[in-house]
Amino acid sequence: MDEVSRKTFLLFGDSLTQRSFDEGGWGGRLASAYQRKADVIARGYSGYNTRWAAYTLEKIFTKGHVPPDLVTIFFGANDAALPDRLNGRQHVPIEEYVAHLRAFVEHIRSVGTKHIILITPPPVDETVRVQENQQKVGGEQEAAMLPERTNAVAGEYAKAVKQLGEELGIPVVDLWSNIQMQPLWQACLSDGLHFTSTGNAAVYHLVQAKINEALPHLRPDALSMDFPGHADIDASSPDSAFKGTAIS
Amino acid sequence: MDEVSRKTFLLFGDSLTQRSFDEGGWGGRLASAYQRKADVIARGYSGYNTRWAAYTLEKIFTKGHVPPDLVTIFFGANDAALPDRLNGRQHVPIEEYVAHLRAFVEHIRSVGTKHIILITPPPVDETVRVQENQQKVGGEQEAAMLPERTNAVAGEYAKAVKQLGEELGIPVVDLWSNIQMQPLWQACLSDGLHFTSTGNAAVYHLVQAKINEALPHLRPDALSMDFPGHADIDASSPDSAFKGTAIS
Repeated sequence: MDEVSRKTFLLFGDSLTQRSFDEGGWGGRLASAYQRKADVIARGYSGYNTRWAAYTLEKIFTKGHVPPDLVTIFFGANDAALPDRLNGRQHVPIEEYVAHLRAFVEHIRSVGTKHIILITPPPVDETVRVQENQQKVGGEQEAAMLPERTNAVAGEYAKAVKQLGEELGIPVVDLWSNIQMQPLWQACLSDGLHFTSTGNAAVYHLVQAKINEALPHLRPDALSMDFPGHADIDASSPDSAFKGTAIS
Repeated sequence: MDEVSRKTFLLFGDSLTQRSFDEGGWGGRLASAYQRKADVIARGYSGYNTRWAAYTLEKIFTKGHVPPDLVTIFFGANDAALPDRLNGRQHVPIEEYVAHLRAFVEHIRSVGTKHIILITPPPVDETVRVQENQQKVGGEQEAAMLPERTNAVAGEYAKAVKQLGEELGIPVVDLWSNIQMQPLWQACLSDGLHFTSTGNAAVYHLVQAKINEALPHLRPDALSMDFPGHADIDASSPDSAFKGTAIS
């Protein structure tokens, strides 16, 4: 859109990405950390698994267009829904999930994006999920007595992401493990699945730490601001700071 | 960057725009309201007045590039700094301020952007500004005994923006007046100048109300989401919802 030398970070995922600009969200926190340095843009699709997201890929990452400098790929919370429970329609078997992630990485690299971060699904608070399901379909229904996602299964999907990252040489944010290391990790989740402000802060800090460690040239302090800081402008002769002329 | 049919909203301004993605910020709130509908991007430059922002204009809004669908222009808080006080270097006389705003509108229209919203500077809490200045330069210094910005002068700049908006047929968000209509309006400002979360919420709601009223086709509920909602996808035959094929 413009000639300003900003990076573009694109967040690709499900509702955990779609909602990442809600108050306290990890996308907004990233945008704040990268103000005047990178535009942070969400391509998050609530309820989507990787099978459905595969349909969006070529339209989001289009050959011949300017590619994002960094892409986060964050799916699995829906793929890991159990096939024989509520939300079974979202289930994608783990082998197919990994195959889709692999195809996403391949395609995103093919359009010219050099840096990708994989994010594992977060843990699941099964007790709260059952409460949520009971509210949704009524407490007596058999389907609502069991969680539609389990923490153990989410952990298997997370493990598969870690393996894929190692295989492809892509940094992985292991949300599933790291969030559970926090005391009272359940406070990171609002409905057992989506993030509270605390959870969003954790996601942001984990993603930022991964950038800092694995992609140090994309650290916020490694990038320069677009246009001079105002204190560097000589008020009596602003031309010199901007090395150009003003429109007037 | 991609072929997804999202709008782009660009926020052009000073620190009140640069910081708009900080926690609870009005830019982040706008991004949340427009999730899957518009990308909201900040081009905010802390400390800048319109004289300095004029240097950035052609690089931010470049002929031949895809223009933003909506641009907010939000300057004046620094232009209205008093010339003979602390921060006098930021002062721009009101006539010159208006001339720059007029040039900004003209240039932004010339690159193809159809919709512009002007935002007036917010009110100033002079008592808090004096406290801030005293902290900055020491309480005994004469320069710190008087506010470097006054609410009355900010009001003159705000009035000038309103007149320009009427003349050019551009919607104006009159922050200066509307924030002061709130009981305890000082709670909208953290340091007498920048927004608290309460202030940011007010700015977001005023901008959103102006879009809804003056540009109803850009209301969030008037725009369609990119890609189908997940409940509209037939899990046994997703092709039909996407009218296309998946990458795999």
